[in-house]
Amino acid sequence: MPDKFLSDIEIAQQATMQVINNIAEKIGIPDQYVENYGKYKAKIDFRYLQNELKDNEDAKLILVSAINPTPAGEGKTTTTIGLGDSLSSLGQKTIIALREPSLGPVFGVKGGAAGGGYAQVVPMEDINLHFTGDFHAIGAANNLLAAMIDNHIHQGNELDIDTRRIVWRRAVDMNDRQLRRIVDGLGGKTEGVVREDGFDITVASEVMAIFCLSNDILELKENLSKIVVAYSRSGEAVTAGQLKAEGAMAALLKDALKPNLVQTLEGTAAFIHGGPFANIAHGCNSVIATKMASKIADYVVTEAGFGADLGAEKFIDIKCRKTGLKPSAVVIVATVKALKYNGGVAKADLGAENLAALEKGLPNLLKHVENITQVFKLPAVVAINKFPTDTDEELNLIKEKCKELGVNVALSEVWGKGSKGGQELANEVIRLTEKPGELEFAYDLNLSVKEKIKSIATKLYGAYDVEFAPKANKEIANIEKLGFSNMPICMAKNQYSLTDDPKVLGRPTNFKITIRDITISAGAGFLVALTGDIMKMPGLPKVPAAETIDVDVDGKIKGLF
Amino acid sequence: MPDKFLSDIEIAQQATMQVINNIAEKIGIPDQYVENYGKYKAKIDFRYLQNELKDNEDAKLILVSAINPTPAGEGKTTTTIGLGDSLSSLGQKTIIALREPSLGPVFGVKGGAAGGGYAQVVPMEDINLHFTGDFHAIGAANNLLAAMIDNHIHQGNELDIDTRRIVWRRAVDMNDRQLRRIVDGLGGKTEGVVREDGFDITVASEVMAIFCLSNDILELKENLSKIVVAYSRSGEAVTAGQLKAEGAMAALLKDALKPNLVQTLEGTAAFIHGGPFANIAHGCNSVIATKMASKIADYVVTEAGFGADLGAEKFIDIKCRKTGLKPSAVVIVATVKALKYNGGVAKADLGAENLAALEKGLPNLLKHVENITQVFKLPAVVAINKFPTDTDEELNLIKEKCKELGVNVALSEVWGKGSKGGQELANEVIRLTEKPGELEFAYDLNLSVKEKIKSIATKLYGAYDVEFAPKANKEIANIEKLGFSNMPICMAKNQYSLTDDPKVLGRPTNFKITIRDITISAGAGFLVALTGDIMKMPGLPKVPAAETIDVDVDGKIKGLF
Repeated sequence: MPDKFLSDIEIAQQATMQVINNIAEKIGIPDQYVENYGKYKAKIDFRYLQNELKDNEDAKLILVSAINPTPAGEGKTTTTIGLGDSLSSLGQKTIIALREPSLGPVFGVKGGAAGGGYAQVVPMEDINLHFTGDFHAIGAANNLLAAMIDNHIHQGNELDIDTRRIVWRRAVDMNDRQLRRIVDGLGGKTEGVVREDGFDITVASEVMAIFCLSNDILELKENLSKIVVAYSRSGEAVTAGQLKAEGAMAALLKDALKPNLVQTLEGTAAFIHGGPFANIAHGCNSVIATKMASKIADYVVTEAGFGADLGAEKFIDIKCRKTGLKPSAVVIVATVKALKYNGGVAKADLGAENLAALEKGLPNLLKHVENITQVFKLPAVVAINKFPTDTDEELNLIKEKCKELGVNVALSEVWGKGSKGGQELANEVIRLTEKPGELEFAYDLNLSVKEKIKSIATKLYGAYDVEFAPKANKEIANIEKLGFSNMPICMAKNQYSLTDDPKVLGRPTNFKITIRDITISAGAGFLVALTGDIMKMPGLPKVPAAETIDVDVDGKIKGLF
Repeated sequence: MPDKFLSDIEIAQQATMQVINNIAEKIGIPDQYVENYGKYKAKIDFRYLQNELKDNEDAKLILVSAINPTPAGEGKTTTTIGLGDSLSSLGQKTIIALREPSLGPVFGVKGGAAGGGYAQVVPMEDINLHFTGDFHAIGAANNLLAAMIDNHIHQGNELDIDTRRIVWRRAVDMNDRQLRRIVDGLGGKTEGVVREDGFDITVASEVMAIFCLSNDILELKENLSKIVVAYSRSGEAVTAGQLKAEGAMAALLKDALKPNLVQTLEGTAAFIHGGPFANIAHGCNSVIATKMASKIADYVVTEAGFGADLGAEKFIDIKCRKTGLKPSAVVIVATVKALKYNGGVAKADLGAENLAALEKGLPNLLKHVENITQVFKLPAVVAINKFPTDTDEELNLIKEKCKELGVNVALSEVWGKGSKGGQELANEVIRLTEKPGELEFAYDLNLSVKEKIKSIATKLYGAYDVEFAPKANKEIANIEKLGFSNMPICMAKNQYSLTDDPKVLGRPTNFKITIRDITISAGAGFLVALTGDIMKMPGLPKVPAAETIDVDVDGKIKGLF
């Protein structure tokens, strides 16, 4: 642990970065495919994957997941980055594959999403701000489609779109509650057609999910064309393809589709590319980046959203199923504080040792381990992400309980020590990957929509049944009518609880899940099952972080976190 | 003229570009200041200007303006690029300084804004799409401020903002008429405060004008803080500074503020940076780019918006006055077709020789020449931008009439021949700059608002008087109360006519200008005098260009123009 605690941005700004071309060279990417964005960021042309890497063997893919997130923070991204550095330091050719952070929340309350302490990706300010512009491109593609829908209606509405049933919303990468629900097209005959509308934050756009699940531009265009944007007055689905929008949308996305290469503080290569919501979408970085990393490296360390009930489930049942990717091992991150929180301790009291509460919170961790090992049949290791306030007794309690139950466990101190703090975890991961497990999915695509949802809820959450609200039943009928029943399910459940009530912590039993509504993401290729209201446009807090963010005459950012 | 006419994108895609680092090296920019964005675009760190160029002599600045634009097209950007290439080919160290095109119109009807024929800047697809992301950054800064305004109101409205008098609008870089007039904040207590609102296209944002008129980040922040976003219920101006928004806005703009370097088809360096509207803003590229170019090169060729009545006037009275920049010569672009149009010929008939109409349209050109030589006291040359359909008799008529009146004139064939077609013009420009004129402004800043507007209308347009509508008079009173009277005027007049009626072509006499309204751009540092409704959010046409734009599996764009 260093003598003085530096903030993440202080550590990041003190780092000496290598020019990104050196990082690219180190992992063998030919210069012709490297497109610099400044000196420390680059996009790697997707043609490298298409033309030169296709036939390479795949790396061992390490998926980092976690327990249910808590206000204490678990450090999943930090662990992912630190594990990558540790594997590198052990001589393994390693690439880290992460999601891009969203711009909007940076100005609210949220800290950065580029790791922490001595396990960060840099340049962290750029990564947290516009980065290479991918999200702006995704927002523009989203909004071009929106403009084309309303223009179509304004110019005569040949497709007979029902203006009360337009399901495509506009997007902006900003926390702006004022835009959640609007009426637009006001002002009379020349100014569009009056209707209800609204904005989501860009990461919630279906374009983001499609972007992350497409293997190349042709598939991207095909998937974009399938987006259901509205229904006609006779109830037929109207698609982006019918509006001839997919070509121009893909033109807007052609550079964004190239994975972004950056480095960790220790010079390990990291692809940071795409970042869909983990609730109404699948929550992991792009397929192109994961595949490119997998064809280059021996180990790829990647991350799923939220806990293993939601993020890892979608990683496997949606992303792996679609692409053939298969994790060789799964890391489940937990902290002493987060487990105590799950054991009923209030946030303010998490700093004090509390072995009883810790033991009470442990079943939450164990459920996530079971999800990986018993549902998906993959090898798993628990990473205890050490905080300065953790006591030895607390750390030992977790270790002992895991060992008693035959659960692999390793201490991770990458936040304070970088790669040196992740040796135990890295060695355990290497050991686990020597004997890869068989991957099983949580459900078969041929099951009915209800059966698929029930499989997830019973196997992953521990529910005994699922109830469907009238709206959900109506939508299932619509889905069957439109022929979309065979798509995988993207569960939009709160991330804090295994149940659909965010206040129920630990490992609850004897509960049902209620599905309120189901929406169709035909372009992304999944059905979104909603258990409650999902916020797709955050708001700013009373004192937004924006008020303290500043930049000096040389362009150096201050106050970002 | 080439045997076969290729489209602009065909010519551009056939070109062999040099890597942008070679272009930077050729003009002497040290590698440490060059930030690549791919292989053919780079941003040049503004610290190069601040740290190393400050004391260099300024280049000769050539301003390219035009007659009033017509549907026939004048080719101002093409002439600017071609003249740059021609000066280069004559051994002059030359940099071209242009505006960035707006993304939205690319999907409507508008062609590219990167020149044409053999006088283009490349890579034209990138320049016309996201380029280096500057406009997205400007949009994000605009929308962060909007979100902070509404969040302030939602969180208690300490500044007592009158929700009926919020003058700050949201922005998106898309042609989307549906967003012109909206009601937002719907949905009840947790979803903001219901009010009227609307979106402008990003180039119309005051952030864009500020961005283009600021010398460095400190001035950028200061100007951003001065933006008047709303009025309190007691009528006081509420600024971005009071919302503490300027630091975070500037943080979003810090990379955008670095000029973008690209090249022409012939390898001449071009800075393409910033692009404010030419009606409600001043319509020229960034001060930082113009100054950087001026400190590096011997000749800088730059462009103002619309005709010399509007664009050149603002270039001189706003940009030159604020920065000390001073054109050494002004080029006024005209075409045979555009002059015939001004002489009363319908668009469909412009292809046929018509000497009488041409002669009838010439006074429009001569008025613009007078504006430059007699109002601003600068040397001017008319560039006749040759079209394939022009007859020798028509070209000779313009030449002879100009010579009779002592007006310098040169034929320009850069569209068809590149630099070879611009030798006559380039030599004339060089000759003119040997004896620089005295720069005079059209008005003194200390005059009253009305007197300043009258000076512009009488001197530049040829009006005999200006009328002020009641709304304008009320706003002038407000401007005086707030202490903003001493700012320059940014005229928002239609570009097609010297009068405020777009249908009155040629060189009208005996007319008045009516000022309908005046708005305050306190951050940009000017008052916008509106003669009519100015469209700040375009719409898409019945068949948008977006429907035919496409991209292939390798990322090659098709159908852009």
